[in-house]
Amino acid sequence: MNVSLDESDLVMARLGAAARDAARVLAATPTAAKAAAVRAAAEAIRAASPAILAANAGDMEAGRAAGLSGALLDRLMLDEKRIAGMAAGLESVAALPDPVGDTIAEWTGRNGLRFSRVRVPIGVIGIVYESRPNVTADAGALCLMAGNACILRGGSEALATSRAIHQAMVEGIVGERLPATAVQLVETPDRAVVGAMLRAQGLIDMLVPRGGKGLVARVQTDARVPVLAHLDGICHVYVDGAADPAKALAIAVNAKMRRTGICGAMETLLIDRAASAQAPAILKALLDAGCAVRVTADLLALDPRLEPATDSDWDTEYLDAIVSVATVDGVEGACHHIAVHGSHHTDSIVTDDEATAERFLAAVDSAIVLHNASTQFADGGEFGFGAEIGISTGRLHARGPVALEGLTTYKYLVRGNGQVRL
Amino acid sequence: MNVSLDESDLVMARLGAAARDAARVLAATPTAAKAAAVRAAAEAIRAASPAILAANAGDMEAGRAAGLSGALLDRLMLDEKRIAGMAAGLESVAALPDPVGDTIAEWTGRNGLRFSRVRVPIGVIGIVYESRPNVTADAGALCLMAGNACILRGGSEALATSRAIHQAMVEGIVGERLPATAVQLVETPDRAVVGAMLRAQGLIDMLVPRGGKGLVARVQTDARVPVLAHLDGICHVYVDGAADPAKALAIAVNAKMRRTGICGAMETLLIDRAASAQAPAILKALLDAGCAVRVTADLLALDPRLEPATDSDWDTEYLDAIVSVATVDGVEGACHHIAVHGSHHTDSIVTDDEATAERFLAAVDSAIVLHNASTQFADGGEFGFGAEIGISTGRLHARGPVALEGLTTYKYLVRGNGQVRL
Repeated sequence: MNVSLDESDLVMARLGAAARDAARVLAATPTAAKAAAVRAAAEAIRAASPAILAANAGDMEAGRAAGLSGALLDRLMLDEKRIAGMAAGLESVAALPDPVGDTIAEWTGRNGLRFSRVRVPIGVIGIVYESRPNVTADAGALCLMAGNACILRGGSEALATSRAIHQAMVEGIVGERLPATAVQLVETPDRAVVGAMLRAQGLIDMLVPRGGKGLVARVQTDARVPVLAHLDGICHVYVDGAADPAKALAIAVNAKMRRTGICGAMETLLIDRAASAQAPAILKALLDAGCAVRVTADLLALDPRLEPATDSDWDTEYLDAIVSVATVDGVEGACHHIAVHGSHHTDSIVTDDEATAERFLAAVDSAIVLHNASTQFADGGEFGFGAEIGISTGRLHARGPVALEGLTTYKYLVRGNGQVRL
Repeated sequence: MNVSLDESDLVMARLGAAARDAARVLAATPTAAKAAAVRAAAEAIRAASPAILAANAGDMEAGRAAGLSGALLDRLMLDEKRIAGMAAGLESVAALPDPVGDTIAEWTGRNGLRFSRVRVPIGVIGIVYESRPNVTADAGALCLMAGNACILRGGSEALATSRAIHQAMVEGIVGERLPATAVQLVETPDRAVVGAMLRAQGLIDMLVPRGGKGLVARVQTDARVPVLAHLDGICHVYVDGAADPAKALAIAVNAKMRRTGICGAMETLLIDRAASAQAPAILKALLDAGCAVRVTADLLALDPRLEPATDSDWDTEYLDAIVSVATVDGVEGACHHIAVHGSHHTDSIVTDDEATAERFLAAVDSAIVLHNASTQFADGGEFGFGAEIGISTGRLHARGPVALEGLTTYKYLVRGNGQVRL
């Protein structure tokens, strides 16, 4: 193989070998022992609060000196309450049902062979994230509960904080006699290590990037290891001619304005030409809620506050109080618009016509397709998964909100009594 | 994006766009219509027998002139019987249960939202294969039955044959009013197109290489698109101290000698030190069956025909009548040997001790782990899947024998009555 090995590949080879050994132990660890380790990590994080806060104060000071934006500093900042939330989060992960060992299917063959397909951990998960130090605890705990070892690489601006959190977690994990290398943190701020993670075939089984688009795009483009992630959440709500006006208005406003910065926020509202009577009230509600509303020409006269949409609006994820609005011709027009401009994340139809709803649910090729509900439900917690490692718009392995089950794979067990193949 | 586009990328962009359109149609096509198209393709292949045989005669002549090996020429060669087998194979694919539309899970949330997880096609599958022209029919039909469009790229030495088969298939498909681009064949022998397929992110959703190790290794190393494949099948049989001698002997001989060239053939036999009394009979049976047997030093004196194994034997997939044999210390020794030298494909334990069997089944990290059965059962047909697109040793999406279900993914449907998120 003609691969140039640099220093960071050697770092990764070391981390990867240790992770593989830990993964072998974790795969054979019973649920109760994994849960005890996660709870012990939570307790250790609580106990290490002063050290974590001190490390965080240092990171914050360096961040301010380096001129980090207010938003970045807010993500980086920890206080007693955030640390308590992090520890409580781990305890809820420890309480999740363990998918490992579940029998997905079983059957007996003609010749008496008994087949079963059982869930097993994936192995080694790499997490690449940015300034939120809570990912250290959160992602580490999810991987561990699903029986995986993980290698965490957080943002360099949060390194001291992540180190302090990681150190506490490892104390908890080791106290429950699981390997210290079950959760490893890349200790060097050298950015080349991220490159080494992306090419760590055979060492890392799956990469999860958590952070802004720049990070996710780089990981998706450059990784040689399978990636679980979504780049864009260009989510649509389609108001059908047969929509209930009160539901349409409530869903459109909630989908956009409940939280504008999350990936499940509506970015484009599609209004059936047959529902044009509903447009004035919906647009007014969005405008009154403080949203900038960019519309197709036919809607522009409805309110002086409306702005004309341009071509690029249909492909833009605002993550802000801005929405684009287009008139479309029925459910077919909506499905076509979504096929051209959507990002296969989350889309919703509002209609009281069941057949139209089923048509939309079948035709829209997104990880999550809703009927008469807000796109903001695109969340592992709302799905009842208890937690999520992320939302995937990839088509293989796992789609939509990914929790413990998405951190597992399966193997076939075949039990015989001496069968040979003819 | 800083990507250099060459001619083959443009070819691929065109094929990919047509495939995506076809995939949209296929995803909405009912089972009966897909089955009818596959049966019509089978019928058209039968009807086109003379044209296919004529094309094949041309490929064979060119192959002989180019000095292709006898083995390659045999793979390339078609006769009436092989064409009939190909058509019958398509008919059995048409009879398989359709996974698309299956509800994998459903539940209702606290707030009354009804969640379901349903199987949908993956989209566009790329198949890269070598000289076996039957893959054109076989892989094309499997993709179509699972609702996927496919792009086929066969070996240039079989191009005329593949073209004739493909043309017949398309006639059948179009006759049942499905898109001609449901199954596309790359018509140019230019090898650069394979490179374009490997980097066709967004155009091809999954690549399946079918052929020798050189091809699979290249695809696994270079592809930027997810790959479903296995490179090596270094399969083990472990004869435990508590093995029934008759079962151990029958399984060892069958696992190695039934067919030596398939990926599920045993390459290494591990014998528990506590089962050393069984070694002479097993080794004699293998030798008598015409197998070359390479053993660890402690076994060498058992038979003058035995040869000493060298370090590289433990990592070699012979695909031939050769086996390496090592003495190990119990099930832990066997699991350790397999962890170090195995290829995560298929491994078997022979023992009458249930606890030891369960220990092996749990600890061996392979797609298929058997107890008291031959490794030669590693096959979609033997698993009852009716057909297989391949066997995967990857850890994500699908492991082991992959049939229609592995050619699907899922999406979440969420049905509400106006719910918004608090």
